[in-house]
Amino acid sequence: MSELGQQLRVDSVRSSSAANSGHPTSSMSAADLMAVLLEKHLRLDYQDPKNPNNDHVIFSKGHASPLYYAMLKAAGAITDEELLTFRRFGSKLEGHPVPIIPWVDVATGSLGQGLPIAVGEALAGKKLDRLPYRVWCLCGDSEMAEGSMWEAFEHAAFTGLDNLTAIIDVNRLGQTRETMVGWDLDRYVKRAEAFGWHAIAIDGHDDDAIDAAYTEARETTGKPTVIVARTKKGKGVKAVEDLPGKHGKPVEDEEAAIEELGGYRELSVDVAKPDDGGREPHSFDVPGGELPTWDVGESVATREAYGKVITALGSMHGDVVALDGEVSNSTHSEMFREAHEDRYFEMFIAEQQLVAAAVGMQVRGWKGFASTFAAFFSRAYDFVRMAAISRADLRLSGSHAGVSIGEDGPSQMALEDFAMFRAVHGSCVLHPSDANQAAQLLAEMVDRKGISYLRTLRGKTQVRTPADEAVTIGGSRIAHEGDDVAIVACGIVVDQAVAAAEQLEGEGVSARVIDAYSIKPLDQEAIRTAARECGAIVTVEDHWPEGGLGDAVLDALADADERPPVTKLAVREMPTSGKPDELLHAAAIDAEAIAGAARQVAKAGSPA
Amino acid sequence: MSELGQQLRVDSVRSSSAANSGHPTSSMSAADLMAVLLEKHLRLDYQDPKNPNNDHVIFSKGHASPLYYAMLKAAGAITDEELLTFRRFGSKLEGHPVPIIPWVDVATGSLGQGLPIAVGEALAGKKLDRLPYRVWCLCGDSEMAEGSMWEAFEHAAFTGLDNLTAIIDVNRLGQTRETMVGWDLDRYVKRAEAFGWHAIAIDGHDDDAIDAAYTEARETTGKPTVIVARTKKGKGVKAVEDLPGKHGKPVEDEEAAIEELGGYRELSVDVAKPDDGGREPHSFDVPGGELPTWDVGESVATREAYGKVITALGSMHGDVVALDGEVSNSTHSEMFREAHEDRYFEMFIAEQQLVAAAVGMQVRGWKGFASTFAAFFSRAYDFVRMAAISRADLRLSGSHAGVSIGEDGPSQMALEDFAMFRAVHGSCVLHPSDANQAAQLLAEMVDRKGISYLRTLRGKTQVRTPADEAVTIGGSRIAHEGDDVAIVACGIVVDQAVAAAEQLEGEGVSARVIDAYSIKPLDQEAIRTAARECGAIVTVEDHWPEGGLGDAVLDALADADERPPVTKLAVREMPTSGKPDELLHAAAIDAEAIAGAARQVAKAGSPA
Repeated sequence: MSELGQQLRVDSVRSSSAANSGHPTSSMSAADLMAVLLEKHLRLDYQDPKNPNNDHVIFSKGHASPLYYAMLKAAGAITDEELLTFRRFGSKLEGHPVPIIPWVDVATGSLGQGLPIAVGEALAGKKLDRLPYRVWCLCGDSEMAEGSMWEAFEHAAFTGLDNLTAIIDVNRLGQTRETMVGWDLDRYVKRAEAFGWHAIAIDGHDDDAIDAAYTEARETTGKPTVIVARTKKGKGVKAVEDLPGKHGKPVEDEEAAIEELGGYRELSVDVAKPDDGGREPHSFDVPGGELPTWDVGESVATREAYGKVITALGSMHGDVVALDGEVSNSTHSEMFREAHEDRYFEMFIAEQQLVAAAVGMQVRGWKGFASTFAAFFSRAYDFVRMAAISRADLRLSGSHAGVSIGEDGPSQMALEDFAMFRAVHGSCVLHPSDANQAAQLLAEMVDRKGISYLRTLRGKTQVRTPADEAVTIGGSRIAHEGDDVAIVACGIVVDQAVAAAEQLEGEGVSARVIDAYSIKPLDQEAIRTAARECGAIVTVEDHWPEGGLGDAVLDALADADERPPVTKLAVREMPTSGKPDELLHAAAIDAEAIAGAARQVAKAGSPA
Repeated sequence: MSELGQQLRVDSVRSSSAANSGHPTSSMSAADLMAVLLEKHLRLDYQDPKNPNNDHVIFSKGHASPLYYAMLKAAGAITDEELLTFRRFGSKLEGHPVPIIPWVDVATGSLGQGLPIAVGEALAGKKLDRLPYRVWCLCGDSEMAEGSMWEAFEHAAFTGLDNLTAIIDVNRLGQTRETMVGWDLDRYVKRAEAFGWHAIAIDGHDDDAIDAAYTEARETTGKPTVIVARTKKGKGVKAVEDLPGKHGKPVEDEEAAIEELGGYRELSVDVAKPDDGGREPHSFDVPGGELPTWDVGESVATREAYGKVITALGSMHGDVVALDGEVSNSTHSEMFREAHEDRYFEMFIAEQQLVAAAVGMQVRGWKGFASTFAAFFSRAYDFVRMAAISRADLRLSGSHAGVSIGEDGPSQMALEDFAMFRAVHGSCVLHPSDANQAAQLLAEMVDRKGISYLRTLRGKTQVRTPADEAVTIGGSRIAHEGDDVAIVACGIVVDQAVAAAEQLEGEGVSARVIDAYSIKPLDQEAIRTAARECGAIVTVEDHWPEGGLGDAVLDALADADERPPVTKLAVREMPTSGKPDELLHAAAIDAEAIAGAARQVAKAGSPA
């Protein structure tokens, strides 16, 4: 309990009292751990937060934000005045840290995410930047119950991330009760060791022990280190120290608490800068090249196109990397691995860690394309949600979506991915129907800000889009001309829609098929034009009826001048196994069903 | 490698060859493990699959379905003819097991879910049913990389589930490569022991060793047992045994494989029935009681109502239980814990295990209400998705949603929960605006089939709904009469919408406020009536614009005769910390914004 440690406590008490909310007791338990880090071990130029050689500090226990902000003040990064704006409207110092603060890499506050993201940063340091910066991650003991923490433990050890130090603040008390492990530090040590880490148990209020542990962590090679620190929640203020019922609220008597902690202080720490702050991150020499193209009429699965395109993008851009959830021969990211092995990351069956690694890497500017079965991104939805709050740039691709995958059955069929990804702030949701569309959309994703999601298909589709036709995020294309009715489709059902339009043509009904490869943003102009010119709209998608293409089309017309009736075709019953055609038919999203629906609503004037 | 084990292999080869897809090699590795289980240790009356005393078998590695179906045939539960319908359209034997098969408890196929669900079943056996049945869970080694498996390990040990046996089929090979652990059984053993399990490492093809391990598992008390079995993928057929590149495809030469395995067999196992098959499950005596009610005009948070109501439901129904993710003093499920301690389950900060436990318990008919912050259900989205495929009845309640939570910031604000839960097959999505609505909706959830989700509010809202007014899933209520414009709102913004309507009234604009407490199913009749009578609609919700109430309203009008313009008010920028009122205003979903939008679109004839 150094003077600095006490200052961090005092400031945690002051800011949360000023806000009349927040988590001072969760901050006070870790104050000594962070004081010693700041004074003796951290290498971070607070004047130059983007210096690639800086160490990284992640508060996986994001609710200890008062402590984090108190550190910023001690480091001279923010003023005491700003500290006291904590949690106020307009302040950067939100209830949980967000990267609108220059020194914050990622948003935390959903427990169990900081450490997996730290793994991504440490992977970037070791395998991509190839710089000796360290990643320090403060974890709560409550969040050790989140499975994602153990995904991180496994990956960090497997990849030998000795540049990563996790610090578990074992204050024993969760929000309402003692954790499952309590103060049994040895259990944390045994678990960490069983997962391949070097583990050090200490008294988290003993500055010398903390100092020695950090030194040991920095000297340990070949494996990550975890410091398991026994602490007391609310340490230093008897009214709250190690007491239940004191979570997430300011101390009752601020003045007395500050006095008990030795009073207000104005210590300023000259945090060490990186030892060799001028080193440039590694960059990968690339041969260049061009996007692959396909001839109109070829039959090719967009997942295969995905593999070829990201491989080409890897040749064109040295900062493009690929990650996969151990299904790389299904998503075809294996092509990238074969071509650019040192920029491919196998994340095994751990989708939370898959997304978290991509989030961590993009902190350092690496552009990861992360792929797995589309259905399994639902496992990482909280990570995607938080990535948006992190203002992260993510490129995600899900394969094997919808009933069209066939025999594997519903567990492998993403039927909610459009809904899930549309409801992410700043996202785009793409679903090319052919390989040339996939190529151009993936190329545009490289530089796109925010969360980009692209669904690929298991089965082959006919290439309809000429390679030299522009395909852009927010665009669409007309796959069949007509003006008696508009059919808006995407992905696998574009073929079905065109077949339906051809059939209707024989009946004298002229149907316009819009290939809405960009579901968010949707091509509102094309939809509104179709509404005006065709009078009735049928939407069709291999997705549940909620939150997908149909809803997006309705949204595009919500306050339009022309609002024709819209018939939504989508998967409405739980699918089973079967052949793709059987399942498209059973779900009533095949050519027959589309033709039937279009016939019903086509302009009264048409012969139908 | 007994005769039965070989038969299970042969039948795995045959069914997947007949289907021309599937996972025979992942089945063959575990065939001996399952043969010994079936012949010597399982207590399951296949003629009476609903017998409460039956053991439970869960294939967490659901892709080994050929093995599971081969077991059903060996047990006389299905015919050889049915076995060969594997993966065909119309067959119950889907690519991954689903509970349309009477002996299947839950759908698996998304890895890492079977074991957490098994924990729920074992909890039900020990704490609720109080019957000595055992839960046997076959796990793949690849899925040990899923964090959810370690959530299960921790909970099973913490609650002393000695009625649970996990069997890890360590065949070393994933879909594309070796797992991170390979055949290093000792690492699994150390991890399991560190998490508090009894662990036994064996050769998974040595029948005597398997038999002894099961015996040891059954005799072990106070803790769950894991059997870590070294196996070979594709065991028994040299063309595929322990070879990469053989995942998820039929063997190339079916005939030769069958011959190598000793040929076709027709062994039939007389699986032991439960030792005391007539025992009745425990039932909880309950005092009965009534739903709480509130007076119109009272101010109460719906999360507080949630606590009171589920506590009352617990008094009325002995089969109602509650689970929480260590935020019970926020969700107010703590009231249930205090009243019905033996039916409350603390799942700590492990939302995947939280949902999985509820899934497991409902297999045995227990009606769990599972609660956490609404945002954190996104962590368990894949579990909810799979629960729908499991035809599970789930009751989920998320508190602290939307910008109205205030200072905690966006990490704690669910803004995608409507979208996420709407896109679940057979779900309902509810968001009461006051306590009396919450009470009636929660009461209806008790007996509702499928996935039910109810969002509660952190802040207080005025009770507007008389306690004796009917509130039903699929209903709505008019909170303010009017016919110049309709405002459709839910939850926290109903108060704002009514304030807007009152303001507009002073301007001579008569606005109808529809309180759409049931977002799915939406009260289509009320929306269509409003469309006809009011001519223009404004929707308002504390949610992203995608996939929520606004989209549901548009969907209700998609093919209606009257399709007036709809203005969607929703949260369109990333929120920050601040006071609830500041944030509602900043998001333009407060009374001022609603009045402004309504004024713009109200009937041309109105004075505005």
